[in-house]
Amino acid sequence: MDVNILLFDNFETLDVFGPVEILGSVKEYDLHYYSQNGGEIVSAQNATILTKNITSASRDGILVVPGGKGTRVLINDLSFINLLKEYAEQARYCLSICTGSALLAKTGLLDCKKATSNKKAFEWVRSINSHVNWIRRARWVADGKFYTSSGVSAGMDMTLGFIKDRFNRQYAEEIATHIEYIWNSDCTADLFGQLGNY
Amino acid sequence: MDVNILLFDNFETLDVFGPVEILGSVKEYDLHYYSQNGGEIVSAQNATILTKNITSASRDGILVVPGGKGTRVLINDLSFINLLKEYAEQARYCLSICTGSALLAKTGLLDCKKATSNKKAFEWVRSINSHVNWIRRARWVADGKFYTSSGVSAGMDMTLGFIKDRFNRQYAEEIATHIEYIWNSDCTADLFGQLGNY
Repeated sequence: MDVNILLFDNFETLDVFGPVEILGSVKEYDLHYYSQNGGEIVSAQNATILTKNITSASRDGILVVPGGKGTRVLINDLSFINLLKEYAEQARYCLSICTGSALLAKTGLLDCKKATSNKKAFEWVRSINSHVNWIRRARWVADGKFYTSSGVSAGMDMTLGFIKDRFNRQYAEEIATHIEYIWNSDCTADLFGQLGNY
Repeated sequence: MDVNILLFDNFETLDVFGPVEILGSVKEYDLHYYSQNGGEIVSAQNATILTKNITSASRDGILVVPGGKGTRVLINDLSFINLLKEYAEQARYCLSICTGSALLAKTGLLDCKKATSNKKAFEWVRSINSHVNWIRRARWVADGKFYTSSGVSAGMDMTLGFIKDRFNRQYAEEIATHIEYIWNSDCTADLFGQLGNY
């Protein structure tokens, strides 16, 4: 299955490359890096990544949507939001990290679904769409094909949870051990759930 | 201060972008991505990163050396090892993640110093240079200007430890909280220290 990672300028680096490290361990998954127009994308931590145009992506893969400063611009970019809606709607699964869930919420696809986001940006994310059932205290939330995580590092815990759901717990634990990661495997345990706004 | 990240083909993605997420939070640090010849570098998880030629890097910055499959080739590439030796010797600080310490050990710069590495590749790394004081049970090890971490995810804990040593514990904890990362702050606590070889 294709893992289609949708990048944009000022995406948060670890939002992408934490989950990528885990998804890249799965033999059945092929990782691809896309953006709205293809070409060079620069992360918030100054890493330049080469991407292909999203129109060349398969439609029924796993779509990964990071967060970061770039979301504050894209939330008002209707051509991007419409593109995201099209691909997220058709994706087999859709994983967002941090404020990536704000972009997904804007598409309307999370309406009446449970979701979470970065705790310091939580009020902003919630303001984007009040029809989403926002869960503040969660490391990550799964609702149907949509997985949304809390801030940055929580994306790794969510992705291991996604692997557990698709395969089994032992496989997720093997991947965590291989990368010497201490998996916070309880999606309801959220040390950061009481943090305020930016 | 410049953070000079030395990439090579088949580097382990999270070895780089975990520490980058943390170092990128420090206002005093500027992140730069280099390689031996500049240009496109492809990680083990299929991410293509644009790099500059290492010869354009500042000499007295923080050098970051990842691990990954690519180290198995580079360990026998004397032109790379000599280049690494030159830059690591002149760097103000040198941080390696996972099997990046095998490359540093090969330069001789870790001789008589304490260091650690990935636990599943530990015997291989130790075989590279027996004059290093290899510490098996450690999340990371600091010896003078050299910081070496265990496998992949341990690089994040080490980098927060590096920030604690350069600034203070509160600052490291603030960065961890900002990225919702649960910092394993005890460098001697190593859940993975008993793992065998690949």
